[in-house]
Amino acid sequence: MDYYRRSSVSTVPDAEPIKVGFIGLSYNKGWAVKTHYPAILQLSSQFEITALYSPQIENAISTIQKLKLTSATAFPTIESFASSSNVDMIVIAIQSSNNYSTIMPLIEYSHKNPNLKYLFLEWPMAATLDQAEEIYKVASLRGLQTIISLQGRKSPYVRRAKELISQGYLGDINSIEIMGNAGWYGYERMVKSPSYIFEMGNGSDMISTTFGHTIDILQYMTGSYFHRINSMIFNNIPLQELVDEHGNSLNEKVKKAVPDHLLFQGTLINGNVPVSCSIKGGRPVKKFTKNLVIDIHGTKGDIKLEGDAGFAEISNLVLYYSGTSSNDISLNNDSSATTGYDAGKEITEVYHLRNYNAVLGNIFRLYQSIADFHYNTKHLSNSPSKFIMQGFEFEGFPTFMDGLILERLIHTVYQSHFSSSVINVSQMSQY
Amino acid sequence: MDYYRRSSVSTVPDAEPIKVGFIGLSYNKGWAVKTHYPAILQLSSQFEITALYSPQIENAISTIQKLKLTSATAFPTIESFASSSNVDMIVIAIQSSNNYSTIMPLIEYSHKNPNLKYLFLEWPMAATLDQAEEIYKVASLRGLQTIISLQGRKSPYVRRAKELISQGYLGDINSIEIMGNAGWYGYERMVKSPSYIFEMGNGSDMISTTFGHTIDILQYMTGSYFHRINSMIFNNIPLQELVDEHGNSLNEKVKKAVPDHLLFQGTLINGNVPVSCSIKGGRPVKKFTKNLVIDIHGTKGDIKLEGDAGFAEISNLVLYYSGTSSNDISLNNDSSATTGYDAGKEITEVYHLRNYNAVLGNIFRLYQSIADFHYNTKHLSNSPSKFIMQGFEFEGFPTFMDGLILERLIHTVYQSHFSSSVINVSQMSQY
Repeated sequence: MDYYRRSSVSTVPDAEPIKVGFIGLSYNKGWAVKTHYPAILQLSSQFEITALYSPQIENAISTIQKLKLTSATAFPTIESFASSSNVDMIVIAIQSSNNYSTIMPLIEYSHKNPNLKYLFLEWPMAATLDQAEEIYKVASLRGLQTIISLQGRKSPYVRRAKELISQGYLGDINSIEIMGNAGWYGYERMVKSPSYIFEMGNGSDMISTTFGHTIDILQYMTGSYFHRINSMIFNNIPLQELVDEHGNSLNEKVKKAVPDHLLFQGTLINGNVPVSCSIKGGRPVKKFTKNLVIDIHGTKGDIKLEGDAGFAEISNLVLYYSGTSSNDISLNNDSSATTGYDAGKEITEVYHLRNYNAVLGNIFRLYQSIADFHYNTKHLSNSPSKFIMQGFEFEGFPTFMDGLILERLIHTVYQSHFSSSVINVSQMSQY
Repeated sequence: MDYYRRSSVSTVPDAEPIKVGFIGLSYNKGWAVKTHYPAILQLSSQFEITALYSPQIENAISTIQKLKLTSATAFPTIESFASSSNVDMIVIAIQSSNNYSTIMPLIEYSHKNPNLKYLFLEWPMAATLDQAEEIYKVASLRGLQTIISLQGRKSPYVRRAKELISQGYLGDINSIEIMGNAGWYGYERMVKSPSYIFEMGNGSDMISTTFGHTIDILQYMTGSYFHRINSMIFNNIPLQELVDEHGNSLNEKVKKAVPDHLLFQGTLINGNVPVSCSIKGGRPVKKFTKNLVIDIHGTKGDIKLEGDAGFAEISNLVLYYSGTSSNDISLNNDSSATTGYDAGKEITEVYHLRNYNAVLGNIFRLYQSIADFHYNTKHLSNSPSKFIMQGFEFEGFPTFMDGLILERLIHTVYQSHFSSSVINVSQMSQY
């Protein structure tokens, strides 16, 4: 099976679309209108926005009008929104520092909605690990199928890499190196950037977002969590220069409290593989290096993933593979294709979708997976009606548990830095 | 001044050549005959081999005959060799595990030779840090001008990079990444490789040699020692496959005790610069990456050094520079050339000497520096007659003190690994 191709079962369903209640969709700004909204629009047989909540009801009403959400109702309070039985799935895409104070009452009130099945949360989960643990717990107790937008797992390049690795085309992985430039944590700040992403304590910074998505992708591709890690965190650029949308200096410096560089190294549980990772703010002169490079080396082949932006989950990548076909490659199936007469032959693959819009595309594929899951459960008797975590499965989607495991790793990255020590994180995926 | 070009004062001297006594020169095997010997041969007005010591006198005699060392005497004991007043400089190029037991009596006996001025030792200095400290001490007390073969400092690419950095072409350095493949510590072992390099306790392994030379070069180029470091050391390949000189398997596995992978990360004292470093054994399929890559990023430009072999000190490299010329670049001199009308212009440089034999060339340049120093001291009244360390100077050559500082860092790399902690190494360069 080609795991990086879509499942064939997800056609237009012979059923009602999933009714989506949205917190954080605004017609004129933010992430949701650029990603979640067009994804839902393109999957209009599977999803339909039926409810919007905003603390300012007029914002919700304007968004309904401007986006012509003809089936949607604007709710003035979390209580009324959460209680509405016209919602199957709640999507939350707000500042992560507000997630906890929004979700806790939301889930409490949602007991009044017997139809609520899905809770879809934007990454990062919360401002602190404790909040994330509690969010996981209450959603779990409420019996919801959770989704966390670690959408890098849906990137076609990530899936192709995962497929090559799982089918043995790399042999034993023996070394991994990651380098990324996390643009907006560097020397310049776009004047229109929200200031909260440069302040500590919001749970959203270079470590949780740039590193978080990237390391989640790495674990997902290799099928292994980390064993031991060490990290060093830097704020070497305490003042950023404000620039306009054309990059011209406004001759004003503003304070930055969040990190602009992370050194991270560690070992994967599987194979004790050494992983070296350097993620930095800024976009230095880049003649020779891409802004994102993930090198995965194995005994039989190598993968390089490259991107123009240092954000693996929203960047259109290029995948390079080079390796030697061999009789010992254990393919899951279709083994005749690469064994036999051409064993020992060198194989090279360059995989790139020229017009792939990764910002939208990966979120779109996440919604596709939810639809696949939702409608399959009605037809396939042996499918579970709910699952706790995706783990490293090709199918499905990342859940709050997957998110929580990553939040724990990120928390430990800070711990390692502050304690100047190597930390064993091998128990992190226990629940 | 172009620091990467040779000093113009080193012409054929109007004086006797430096008389060299050699331990470890063998006409038919080893490192010295491929490097030190041809270097001395090409500098025959500056150096002349006058004495050889070997525990097997017949080896010394054969080497004198085969290499036609007409001025050389073979000595049967360290005592007689060290006592001979026909020697100005002793060169030692033997297994590093034998350095201590050779040098201690050598220096003791050398008091009988009033002409002895130079002691030139191959890297690594010794089997342990304690031995290295003591070797430094006795050589220092004996009043010798020491030389350690950290010859990467003489690589034209390293010097060009150092020049670009010191003249401000990178602006403030803000990130460094190093990746290397240390070929012979991988899955295969050439049947003719000496087995001691695969055993622990000899002081010569991937950490001391591959990493040691590379990190010395990095510190030298940037002009900064490290502040804090963390390391993780791996022996993931405990068995190597024996191969013949054509790379064909001999169907025999042999034990390897030394590391095959080092993860190292840390900060430079100057600028708190994050440095990420991954050095591994083996030569995996390499379509996309060179076996050595050193990326140095700065606010105004970037340098990439690439090599086909992971051993920076013996590999012919390519230097790429890309940056923006600017009025704030503080040139040491000749500032008119890059400021003024072309300020802000993008500059690119590719520096490569196609036929440069780096194995010999860097050692040759080390001998040139010794000759420059030796003959200059006779003409330039303000030159010191001896110096303790080169540090980060362009001129001169690395000494036992430079070597000792590096041995201390390497020792700490092991300490950091075994203690799972970040270690402050900022006091390491104190003497």
